[in-house]
Amino acid sequence: MSRIVLVTGGARSGKSAVAEERTLRLGSPAVYIATAEAHDAEMAERIAAHRARRGPQWQTVAAPLDLPGALAATEGAPRLVDCLTLWLSNLMLAGRDTAQARQALAAALGAARSPVVLVTNEVGWGIVPDNPLGRRFRDEAGLLGQRVAAIADEVCLVACGLPLMLKG
Amino acid sequence: MSRIVLVTGGARSGKSAVAEERTLRLGSPAVYIATAEAHDAEMAERIAAHRARRGPQWQTVAAPLDLPGALAATEGAPRLVDCLTLWLSNLMLAGRDTAQARQALAAALGAARSPVVLVTNEVGWGIVPDNPLGRRFRDEAGLLGQRVAAIADEVCLVACGLPLMLKG
Amino acid sequence: MSRIVLVTGGARSGKSAVAEERTLRLGSPAVYIATAEAHDAEMAERIAAHRARRGPQWQTVAAPLDLPGALAATEGAPRLVDCLTLWLSNLMLAGRDTAQARQALAAALGAARSPVVLVTNEVGWGIVPDNPLGRRFRDEAGLLGQRVAAIADEVCLVACGLPLMLKG
Repeated sequence: MSRIVLVTGGARSGKSAVAEERTLRLGSPAVYIATAEAHDAEMAERIAAHRARRGPQWQTVAAPLDLPGALAATEGAPRLVDCLTLWLSNLMLAGRDTAQARQALAAALGAARSPVVLVTNEVGWGIVPDNPLGRRFRDEAGLLGQRVAAIADEVCLVACGLPLMLKG
Repeated sequence: MSRIVLVTGGARSGKSAVAEERTLRLGSPAVYIATAEAHDAEMAERIAAHRARRGPQWQTVAAPLDLPGALAATEGAPRLVDCLTLWLSNLMLAGRDTAQARQALAAALGAARSPVVLVTNEVGWGIVPDNPLGRRFRDEAGLLGQRVAAIADEVCLVACGLPLMLKG
Repeated sequence: MSRIVLVTGGARSGKSAVAEERTLRLGSPAVYIATAEAHDAEMAERIAAHRARRGPQWQTVAAPLDLPGALAATEGAPRLVDCLTLWLSNLMLAGRDTAQARQALAAALGAARSPVVLVTNEVGWGIVPDNPLGRRFRDEAGLLGQRVAAIADEVCLVACGLPLMLKG
């Protein structure tokens, strides 16, 4: 198994920049595995801003649903998965079995022959959401984060752009 | 005063597993002091899942409101209180004086002759809740966490299943 | 440039008490730069409680919008800015250009000749807010926190009243 790194933190905490830098230290050029889909103008703008910050050392691959497949198809260079919570959201919207998807991701990470850096979001530090879907989402996101962290060689929590090592 | 440990973190961060392990390192068998009440099917399911994970080393005591009394009644073994934010929620629903309850808990922890591990939830890291009850709850939860942390010998923050020591 | 300290954390995490203590270790008397405006009874009560905790070593200056100006006008003593998220909220309500304000604050901090301690709130660790204004606010708050953290000599994250150093 190759090096697995998890970068977690709140929204706009600077997670992506930390993760991009960590990925390029593992090798360059690198592959950016984007789980985002531009459903609306707000999201399209956010994707464009992220892409504009990344330089020419990046090749971009879209993987809104089949993240394990994208990992298998991009061996040879360091990969950055940005981000797991958007992937989870896509899976839930598509009615997929999230426990099975979590298992498939764990298997793909276990089989990885080149490094993988994954970004996820902390979403469970507020008051209980008032709708069942919100509650289910934060439960699933928490379980996914725990599962990947258990496999990872390094885990860091980012706040105000600054990484804090939790593991490794 | 015996050893007091506070374990805090977001929802589904793996706090309970960290706290259970910490409690059993303090001695076994241990007492699980449950503050949860099964008001609906969703909550009943969550309680059952937590109970299924715990092994036969645990005796379970319910304390939705009288947590200080439950601590006094269970001396002799390590106790795990899971969790303070549900206790607070029960107190608020029952119209109790939360400042008084905080004081009674602090006194009970000060008088404890066997270890107590307490789980709480971080609930104040989101945007301001749009309803007054939500705002009051996160204020009260914050004050309760600060009060117990000031008394505790150890405080750890859990993210993605990984503990980060804040004290001790 | 003088010493710049950023204190961040959730609501009711004990950030203000940590920041007040840090400021007084930098010198006394100190200047408390309040960004809060009492728009309603709930806020007025909160401001009064904060003011009651501070002792006579503090001179209070109000700066709901012109924080850079207040920093320039209070040179000579340590300053505590409490807090950046309320300042941001005031700027947004007043329709100001937030990117420009961020730049003006960074310039003011770069020019500071006596220490500045700034308090901010982590607001991006919950599920995505369901309204666009809430989403914009947490994006802006995250960018502001990252910007000030990049300039700061020290950054600490507070949970349960306990500081965790992220930088310095």
